[in-house]
Amino acid sequence: MTTPDPRLSINQATLKHADLATALRVTAEAGVQSIGLWREPVLEVGLEAASRMLADSGLRFSTHCRGGFFTLPEGPARVAALDDNRRAIEEAATLAAAGAEGSKAILVLVAGGIPEGSRDLLGARERVRDAIGTLAPDAAAAGVTLAIEPLHPMYVSDRAVVSTLGQALDIAADFEPSVVGVTVDTFHIWWDPQVLEQIARAGSEGRIATYQVCDWKTPLAADVLLSRHYPGDGVIDFGSLTRAVEATGYDGDIEVEIFNEEVWATDPLLAVQRTSAGFSAAVSPHLAWVPAA
Amino acid sequence: MTTPDPRLSINQATLKHADLATALRVTAEAGVQSIGLWREPVLEVGLEAASRMLADSGLRFSTHCRGGFFTLPEGPARVAALDDNRRAIEEAATLAAAGAEGSKAILVLVAGGIPEGSRDLLGARERVRDAIGTLAPDAAAAGVTLAIEPLHPMYVSDRAVVSTLGQALDIAADFEPSVVGVTVDTFHIWWDPQVLEQIARAGSEGRIATYQVCDWKTPLAADVLLSRHYPGDGVIDFGSLTRAVEATGYDGDIEVEIFNEEVWATDPLLAVQRTSAGFSAAVSPHLAWVPAA
Repeated sequence: MTTPDPRLSINQATLKHADLATALRVTAEAGVQSIGLWREPVLEVGLEAASRMLADSGLRFSTHCRGGFFTLPEGPARVAALDDNRRAIEEAATLAAAGAEGSKAILVLVAGGIPEGSRDLLGARERVRDAIGTLAPDAAAAGVTLAIEPLHPMYVSDRAVVSTLGQALDIAADFEPSVVGVTVDTFHIWWDPQVLEQIARAGSEGRIATYQVCDWKTPLAADVLLSRHYPGDGVIDFGSLTRAVEATGYDGDIEVEIFNEEVWATDPLLAVQRTSAGFSAAVSPHLAWVPAA
Repeated sequence: MTTPDPRLSINQATLKHADLATALRVTAEAGVQSIGLWREPVLEVGLEAASRMLADSGLRFSTHCRGGFFTLPEGPARVAALDDNRRAIEEAATLAAAGAEGSKAILVLVAGGIPEGSRDLLGARERVRDAIGTLAPDAAAAGVTLAIEPLHPMYVSDRAVVSTLGQALDIAADFEPSVVGVTVDTFHIWWDPQVLEQIARAGSEGRIATYQVCDWKTPLAADVLLSRHYPGDGVIDFGSLTRAVEATGYDGDIEVEIFNEEVWATDPLLAVQRTSAGFSAAVSPHLAWVPAA
């Protein structure tokens, strides 16, 4: 068993069926130094208990997942969604303060799809921009970075009307980089003919809040949401993408977030070890930045 | 039953289980004026017989489907693929000459995916460009337009490394517009934040060889290749896309090509009628160009 890369972070979704205590335990036990958490398992134990558990684990906290779902039209459901995002911002700040040194207060944002019964993709995109404008002061006050995540275009109608890194950066451009950044996730953007130039742009604009790696292979799972794989198991060239991110000076944690029934059915410690091995083989050789000892 | 739109063309893939004779018969019987053919059912009866049958049908010929699959590395398989494309070019020319007035000699090109065992997406894209350069003189000599079709990014690894209209236009830019154009298919490009500007660009560069419409809805079929729907059954806004195409001056046939198990299980005449009804409701209201009587 090789020592896990010091910059690897396990996104909790990779261990979907593990509760928070288990996720923290197996991540630390495997020698991984950082974790990204999801709201549901955190709220299952309560924010205060979750913060204590995180602090006790000795792990860094890399991101909070997730806010967003901003495409609803004006009305009570939209107001409720924005309020829920304000709670998520507070959670991200609290957890980042509880995590080990180097923890980050980042809330990953998924835009949301086209509302039921609508065909207005452009209108939905405008409402994403409006919602981020509404939440930016809350994020700034809490010291949290909102990280807009472009999702693969196969999710455009039901999950995220923001599909490319360029589009995410265009939205972020209205705000301070410390308040609104982007999530660079290889699975979602590797196909984009503009990906390398948009990664460079994201870096020069100071917008790379978090870098996430997982792999793509076909045939896609019947539920396309569950098509993510361990780094190295598919066809993504992690070399060119990782070097592009590193060239911007990004020196943060790198998360692996895998939605995959087979991975979820694996013993969680084994899943972390397998993730770590894939990361060491496929991603680590391309890293320029190693944290100071 | 409303009269079919005079610009509607039925792409034969919509009637996958019909042979050529049946496809021609039901398309004409429904009052549709144009058809796009696939190589396999044409070659099943032979090119000469297919040309006679097409001429007898009185239908226009809108496209030939399909050539491409250009991403193989140098070697006998690549040479064979290029030779096969040369035959497809000849077929397109022959069928266009046999079809009714207004027929077009267009060969739709699907780029091909990343070859087995490779992770070199950029290299695969370069080989697409090279192959088109090799075939362009053959197409020019035959009076055939090669129509590069960007496919949705969910097909990038196994089917088409050309994913956006902008990327297809960048490849086409090296060639005469009469020789290399693009296929504008709503299903593949509707999600693209740059779609309207790239349609305008395609028009101003004289590259829109064919416009194709079908709809998108979720959940996607378990085999994502089979997720295409009748116009109007999903979430695509055919108004903005169709007006953008029409604004370029495009006045050709508009194909409906549906890969969908349920549509394929429908009686072929009913499938044509259903396609025509969807087209009349979702697409026709946005058409500026009506063929001269």
